[in-house]
Amino acid sequence: MISSFPPDSVGLVTPRMLRFDEPLPLDCGRTLPGFELIYETYGALNADRSNAILICHALSGDHHAAGYHQADDSKPGWWDTSIGPGKPIDTRHFFVVCCNNLGGCNGSTGPVSINPDTGKPYGPDFPIVTVKDWVRSQARLADHLGITDWAAVIGGSLGGMQAMQWTIDFPDRIRHAVVIAAAPRLSTQNIAFNEVARQAILSDPDFHEGHYYERGVIPRRGLMVARMLGHITYLSDEGMRTKFGRELREGKLNFHFESEFEIESYLRYQGHSFVGRFDANTYLLMTKALDYFDPAADFDNDLAAAFRQAQARCLIISFTSDWRFSSARSREIVKALVAAKRDVSYAEIPSTQGHDAFLMPIPRYFETFTAYMQRVAGEVSHDAILAKT
Amino acid sequence: MISSFPPDSVGLVTPRMLRFDEPLPLDCGRTLPGFELIYETYGALNADRSNAILICHALSGDHHAAGYHQADDSKPGWWDTSIGPGKPIDTRHFFVVCCNNLGGCNGSTGPVSINPDTGKPYGPDFPIVTVKDWVRSQARLADHLGITDWAAVIGGSLGGMQAMQWTIDFPDRIRHAVVIAAAPRLSTQNIAFNEVARQAILSDPDFHEGHYYERGVIPRRGLMVARMLGHITYLSDEGMRTKFGRELREGKLNFHFESEFEIESYLRYQGHSFVGRFDANTYLLMTKALDYFDPAADFDNDLAAAFRQAQARCLIISFTSDWRFSSARSREIVKALVAAKRDVSYAEIPSTQGHDAFLMPIPRYFETFTAYMQRVAGEVSHDAILAKT
Repeated sequence: MISSFPPDSVGLVTPRMLRFDEPLPLDCGRTLPGFELIYETYGALNADRSNAILICHALSGDHHAAGYHQADDSKPGWWDTSIGPGKPIDTRHFFVVCCNNLGGCNGSTGPVSINPDTGKPYGPDFPIVTVKDWVRSQARLADHLGITDWAAVIGGSLGGMQAMQWTIDFPDRIRHAVVIAAAPRLSTQNIAFNEVARQAILSDPDFHEGHYYERGVIPRRGLMVARMLGHITYLSDEGMRTKFGRELREGKLNFHFESEFEIESYLRYQGHSFVGRFDANTYLLMTKALDYFDPAADFDNDLAAAFRQAQARCLIISFTSDWRFSSARSREIVKALVAAKRDVSYAEIPSTQGHDAFLMPIPRYFETFTAYMQRVAGEVSHDAILAKT
Repeated sequence: MISSFPPDSVGLVTPRMLRFDEPLPLDCGRTLPGFELIYETYGALNADRSNAILICHALSGDHHAAGYHQADDSKPGWWDTSIGPGKPIDTRHFFVVCCNNLGGCNGSTGPVSINPDTGKPYGPDFPIVTVKDWVRSQARLADHLGITDWAAVIGGSLGGMQAMQWTIDFPDRIRHAVVIAAAPRLSTQNIAFNEVARQAILSDPDFHEGHYYERGVIPRRGLMVARMLGHITYLSDEGMRTKFGRELREGKLNFHFESEFEIESYLRYQGHSFVGRFDANTYLLMTKALDYFDPAADFDNDLAAAFRQAQARCLIISFTSDWRFSSARSREIVKALVAAKRDVSYAEIPSTQGHDAFLMPIPRYFETFTAYMQRVAGEVSHDAILAKT
């Protein structure tokens, strides 16, 4: 049979669900009595289980990072540009794992899941989870897969924050961290944008204090506004100008409140399509995880002290046009790693794509990323690859 | 009687209402059969009526630019820092006029006004007005006051755009333009932010397609989100960090969705207080006036060609931390003025206050502003000051 997928694709993939019955203590003080994680894997685990890579997703991501669920899928997983044979995260060398985070809405336990105590969806009663909670749950997944240490933990944006947290919380279980387009903690402005997005959702009359599932409605207006706002922060000023400029959909001003400029139409489309595929309670949780992320806080606000716990070698990548998490923020991470005498490489990639650049196959970015990952691959055994677990 | 106002205040002021019965043609193609403008004046008009200054307000401003309406007002007009005896716009030399723009909600004809055709508030049927429409209506006001030409037209942000438009549309009626923290037209990103704000309002179930007055409700949730978002663009990243940082209201994370960070509390407060004093239909109109402003559009997208119509001498001022209308945007204005061989002065003021800096008495800003206005004052007669009109 001839595959219809590109030769550098991981091809058809099937998510797996894993149930954890041991209670998981959370930063908020509550405990999840048990939980499920949905995850995918690409490539094969080698005999000494040394070639495993964990991919951590960002705000609206999930476990479907690469490949296709069905032969006729219109598009592949969210980071398919980076994962596959011959790609930066080369599945000929690595066994790649990606799970949907706790609190998510794509299969892992989250607000849409049934709360065993009530028999109804958790909704707003799902605990506010943190990056540290996610890392703790991902360690459970590693245990299950028999992975004592990751060759690398890799992520962009909020995913990069998880990679950083891994280096601090499980220093002997991560050999490399690749932290892309991230920040050591949110700026005041970052929190401000999150708060406006949350207010849009929380104030939507269809939100019903988070109990909208029972009402058969969703806070679509609030979620749409939140997503539209998010998109402004994902793109750069220059990128928007190049792509949309002040182009008018009908070539003239119409003096009404329908979409007139192309950028309005783009944002509305993005907002609308998001509403159909993402849960508002999960969106709220993800923004909180971002706001709360602050690894230095446990170390007297000294990020270098936090990284002194770490052993992993790190690659930090930023993009010049990213104003959500600017290069200056990545340099804060680099400086702290240097001060902690850690092994760190840093690349600042010229780009016009803003924060979204981390998802795009920008040549200089991918050259850097690939070279680094080849170094990681050189350290792992390529013999006796096991069958996919 | 001893005044309780500061010695550099214009003191108690009383707005005046003026009715114009001659129809006003608008850019949208419609005509207002008649309209009212509410305005205030400070200082006295001199005998040859050469010392008149027009102040143009920004998105949420109004005619009350300086002084107090009542002895116990908690705060003065919105630009009281700049207008008064001894201030940059010195009322010992100038006769200062400020009106609420058409479409506004503070007294001039706008969506809350009664539509003579229906006997009900215009609401969403109020025409979308432009900066050019405003300038046209302000010229009518000048006619009424017997002012053939303004010594200067001055404004910040959207107000600066009106000052620019004055130089092009009425070149022989404006001797100086002071354009502060403005842009020659909105960037794609600027339009995008406006569109998110509009969507928040338009999608609020209490908006009722703009007919909320009749329902006895207001789209407070949408307007609040719009204003919160606006505030992020008025402040700088650095200013927010300095003022609010990541300070927590209760000194610890509470793992809930109430305000936790000080910045959240600030934004919610700003949003709430705005809802009580501003009309949502007017907010929509103001954002459209911003989006549509593009004086170069009538001149084959050549701003210099637009300014070749102008005769006014110009002072352009920008602020380093303003990311809503950055210094680069002001330099576009300056370059076009230079290319048009106009007399232009430009000052880029170091500041951390973002776009809001134009409202603040920053020493270097006020020195520049004052020196320029003294030059303007030197050109007008100081004899035979008339009584206030």
